[in-house]
Amino acid sequence: MEQSIIVTVDVVLFTLAGDQLQIVLLKREREPYAQQWALPGGYIHADEDRDAQAAAARVLRDKTGLISPYLEQLFTFSGGVRDPRGWSVSISYYALVHESLLVADEAHRFSLWPVDALPDLPFDHQRVVSYAVQRLRDKSSYSSLPCHLLPPLFTLTELQHTYERLLGQPLDKSVFRRKLPELDFLEAVPDAIRLGKHRPAQLYRLRPDKRLAIFDRAM
Amino acid sequence: MEQSIIVTVDVVLFTLAGDQLQIVLLKREREPYAQQWALPGGYIHADEDRDAQAAAARVLRDKTGLISPYLEQLFTFSGGVRDPRGWSVSISYYALVHESLLVADEAHRFSLWPVDALPDLPFDHQRVVSYAVQRLRDKSSYSSLPCHLLPPLFTLTELQHTYERLLGQPLDKSVFRRKLPELDFLEAVPDAIRLGKHRPAQLYRLRPDKRLAIFDRAM
Repeated sequence: MEQSIIVTVDVVLFTLAGDQLQIVLLKREREPYAQQWALPGGYIHADEDRDAQAAAARVLRDKTGLISPYLEQLFTFSGGVRDPRGWSVSISYYALVHESLLVADEAHRFSLWPVDALPDLPFDHQRVVSYAVQRLRDKSSYSSLPCHLLPPLFTLTELQHTYERLLGQPLDKSVFRRKLPELDFLEAVPDAIRLGKHRPAQLYRLRPDKRLAIFDRAM
Repeated sequence: MEQSIIVTVDVVLFTLAGDQLQIVLLKREREPYAQQWALPGGYIHADEDRDAQAAAARVLRDKTGLISPYLEQLFTFSGGVRDPRGWSVSISYYALVHESLLVADEAHRFSLWPVDALPDLPFDHQRVVSYAVQRLRDKSSYSSLPCHLLPPLFTLTELQHTYERLLGQPLDKSVFRRKLPELDFLEAVPDAIRLGKHRPAQLYRLRPDKRLAIFDRAM
């Protein structure tokens, strides 16, 4: 027998801001937990969403204005006690964006919170966030994932800094630069140089084919 | 608005049999796709299942007689076209068992199929299986996962053979034995020696604390 189960999507949207890993929270408009900060989320719309990934993208677009950031399925949380409305399923996702894309949308009602200093979260959202942070750190050490926290063009110093923030430890510059070619997901942008107080720095970007690689694997 | 969505669990149950990676398929009793081979699966029972993982364990127990094998969430497949009954969610899991646990239950209606020679599968079950095989191979190279395909006590030669079957390539014996201590999940069983046509071989088992490690991380 089929029984009525609540099916939602929730998104942990990461960015680096003020040198800290932060996530987006929204004030809930409706009960349960009205007026509390919570992850962006909502019901799946069976008449509108192609699949759960499309539902998560729609929720992000409607609630934060973001279109097509890096978005990957995280885990499905479920059970009879996590939502006071009944037996529920939350298909959770995580997304990564450069801070500038969020600042531009400050007119919206969301706000950024450091992952180490979150308010009390409703449902099992604290568990979802902890799980997402762990996944992000696990994957950072061997993938192009951290690039999605950077602007489209970046220097190797900025890239190293992003890895360091995610892994929570300093990296040796010469070891870092030796490892990069092995990972094989960067390309230098022809004639793109950043001038600064130090010597000019070459700008890089994530190779377009690599940008899709992880996303496809998750599908 | 909440809409009615079909919520099921499906399980890819792996074993090594006849030196091949195989999975369990069952003949569907009901429409849609009655009489076709498919993954063990079923609706979540909101009045009975604590969460989706418990539902997957119940489905495995009822349909194959297995109790508490290694069971980990794989991915949630969803959408409006994967099931002719309507918009549906399949929270999929994969499980690993030693072949002997399945042979003992041959009275049941399931049967083993090599992952490289499956029949036509209904729904998106072929995609679920492909995804599970990829996950198993990805994780095999750096985890204790393959131990769950062995009996409780095994020799290092048997363990190496299992890794080779999963990774699809021969491994150098001396390199393999040098790497094992790094992985730190085995313990020699005191006074357990297997006598054979070659010299006696020490028997090993997965450390009890390591047996739980991956499972807990997935929760």
